[in-house]
Amino acid sequence: MNGFAVFGNIVFSLSPNRTEMLPKHYAVCENGICSGVFPELPAKYAGIRVDDFGDMLIIPGYVDLHTHAAQYRNLGLGMGSRLLDWLEKYTFPEEAAFASEEYASSVYECFAKELRSGFTTRVCILATVHVPATLLLADIMEKTGLRCLAGKVNMDRNCPGFIREEDAAASLRDTEEWLAAQNGRFQNVSPVITPRFVPSCSRELLEGLGKTADLYKLPVQSHLSETRDEVAWVGDLHPEAKCYGEIYDRSGLLGPGSVMAHCVYLTQGDRELIKRSGAFIAHCPTSNSNLQSGVAPVCEYLAEGMNIGLGSDISGGHTLDMADVIREAISASELRAAEDKNARPLSMNEAFYMGTRGGGAFFGKVGAIEAGFEFDAVAAVDGLPPGDATLIERFEKFICSSSGADVRAKYVRGKRLF
Amino acid sequence: MNGFAVFGNIVFSLSPNRTEMLPKHYAVCENGICSGVFPELPAKYAGIRVDDFGDMLIIPGYVDLHTHAAQYRNLGLGMGSRLLDWLEKYTFPEEAAFASEEYASSVYECFAKELRSGFTTRVCILATVHVPATLLLADIMEKTGLRCLAGKVNMDRNCPGFIREEDAAASLRDTEEWLAAQNGRFQNVSPVITPRFVPSCSRELLEGLGKTADLYKLPVQSHLSETRDEVAWVGDLHPEAKCYGEIYDRSGLLGPGSVMAHCVYLTQGDRELIKRSGAFIAHCPTSNSNLQSGVAPVCEYLAEGMNIGLGSDISGGHTLDMADVIREAISASELRAAEDKNARPLSMNEAFYMGTRGGGAFFGKVGAIEAGFEFDAVAAVDGLPPGDATLIERFEKFICSSSGADVRAKYVRGKRLF
Repeated sequence: MNGFAVFGNIVFSLSPNRTEMLPKHYAVCENGICSGVFPELPAKYAGIRVDDFGDMLIIPGYVDLHTHAAQYRNLGLGMGSRLLDWLEKYTFPEEAAFASEEYASSVYECFAKELRSGFTTRVCILATVHVPATLLLADIMEKTGLRCLAGKVNMDRNCPGFIREEDAAASLRDTEEWLAAQNGRFQNVSPVITPRFVPSCSRELLEGLGKTADLYKLPVQSHLSETRDEVAWVGDLHPEAKCYGEIYDRSGLLGPGSVMAHCVYLTQGDRELIKRSGAFIAHCPTSNSNLQSGVAPVCEYLAEGMNIGLGSDISGGHTLDMADVIREAISASELRAAEDKNARPLSMNEAFYMGTRGGGAFFGKVGAIEAGFEFDAVAAVDGLPPGDATLIERFEKFICSSSGADVRAKYVRGKRLF
Repeated sequence: MNGFAVFGNIVFSLSPNRTEMLPKHYAVCENGICSGVFPELPAKYAGIRVDDFGDMLIIPGYVDLHTHAAQYRNLGLGMGSRLLDWLEKYTFPEEAAFASEEYASSVYECFAKELRSGFTTRVCILATVHVPATLLLADIMEKTGLRCLAGKVNMDRNCPGFIREEDAAASLRDTEEWLAAQNGRFQNVSPVITPRFVPSCSRELLEGLGKTADLYKLPVQSHLSETRDEVAWVGDLHPEAKCYGEIYDRSGLLGPGSVMAHCVYLTQGDRELIKRSGAFIAHCPTSNSNLQSGVAPVCEYLAEGMNIGLGSDISGGHTLDMADVIREAISASELRAAEDKNARPLSMNEAFYMGTRGGGAFFGKVGAIEAGFEFDAVAAVDGLPPGDATLIERFEKFICSSSGADVRAKYVRGKRLF
């Protein structure tokens, strides 16, 4: 049997409101899949390797549903700007530099290195419009052992010429070229169709990408309703659409394999489309704070049973560390609740759920240490003062104070990365 | 000459809107005071010791104007509660445990250890009502080498019997006893008069504490206008007062040596009292988020020229790391600005100012690496990807991503702690 167990204090999410806490338990992995969690190792597993993490916490690893690898060098720059200005001033010029494979490689290596060492086990990545650099990104991410979706960005309008693709046909041709070059080359990295967002994609491009996604059965990632100004702009560009989400939907870009970042200002129509389609929301609270976009009504989305996870969204977000993103999800919701009597803050359970099981569902049976789930796990220390803290208290403190530097071991689909 | 120099990239605040950046400079310290910052070491300093930090950043160290040492074990617990419930459920029971010196010592040692290792160089600490534990705290903080104000808490009403002092006279007697026992014993730790807040202090107690502060020329720390419910309660308790701040003011507790935590809901009357008195505001953004208290209009306070710094306010705040507090100050202000067209977000310069020079002024000429200032300095690494980042970019990224773990060396008033 190709199996092993990890021993420690196992913590994972059962649902938005329930976190399972199993002190001093064994989680068994067979062929990349968790076959159960036990207080004593069952007799049938006698003799398997046990990785003993003693008093450490073991969680499923965090799932980052939305991040821009090419903006890694911009981390922390331009904060205080708002979205549309920030794209013009910071993002587009930086992304243009990825025409150089040498530059791309230097940045993507740093991005991959940080991601590998921290809490993240799964990640949805946006690259740039450039095919060679996007292939390089896949090469680099493959070596990390993390499971990734990585997508070449498409954009053919409303952006500076130095970063705009010539037209829809050229953009679609490049997309085919990228998919063909990537096909069959990677174990850990899969392609994802990546229209930037409605304002920078013509209708022809969106429809072409919908067909490509359908033809190759590929997932889709994009942005939806991030700021009030953006929503108004989309309304001007598409007076025929009843809501922003409809524009993706009618192009075949909204389905259970789609993840839409932000969703701060969804209309009722958007919400119904998202629910009906089964699409995922990537809530990006650090980014939404930094760019003063607002606070998405995440508690409502959870109550409505929508699929939702978290995204670091660098460099709108200022950190790749999902532990920071989880905290900002909570604190932004607390500030929303301070001002709006109808809102309530996210609980730690809910934020942890979104960062693990909620986002993990986009990758399949991922995001819990539970029989039948792919075996992703991270062992981490917590810097507690000595005392008789319960596991619940330790979990609460962990959510409040952990950082990627606390990670001591990581497994993705049963493979130990370090 | 009892002097030395530190070499590195020196960054400090000149004013809320200006941050000085001096790449590869020497900061000279003589007898605990900075005698200047120079691109080359002047001839008169030839031969002095140079602590070379190469490419690291050197900042003045952060000033934490408000924190509760006795709540260290509660870090991360009870988040999602609101202030008055949270005090009853989490804070008062924990503080009651400080009747035991053994317990107090174990917690205060952990608190001191974390504070010593991170960015903080100066700190205003609230202890509990207990005299022996408060003396222990001073003993323990003395050894860290950080400069502290530490205060025995006073509270004689509206709190559970297990933590309430018998009456104003008993509280004042204990205060005298504590001051007498502490007198002359410490280099780094000074006492500060610490009425908890108006709801838990009778008028007689406040007036007595005002006289004590005046008699011994002591600073004062307390809480002011943290939540709407608290402000309403104070209004009920003191219908005779025109505003919350007036109650401290008429007791002689508001002056240039006073620091008032929170100030989220100051009335115009409060603001005028604070400005006239020269009192300091300790803005505690992590706490104000966690307890859904709201976002203090800090930009207005800065524009009005009020004295203002930052506080970690554990365990309303979830972290002692002032780097986190600086980030939350910015992101909370960004969310305020997203909702309120009259508000603007704090700049990094402003947040850094509050965390250094703004709060430092409460301690005298503190919080800048400038001739005439007490020589506080911290050398820290930043985890930048390779590249040609300017010092401005590095500063921005540092604000976005630094943590206490990045600190490599620390000086307080010219003494190197590590």
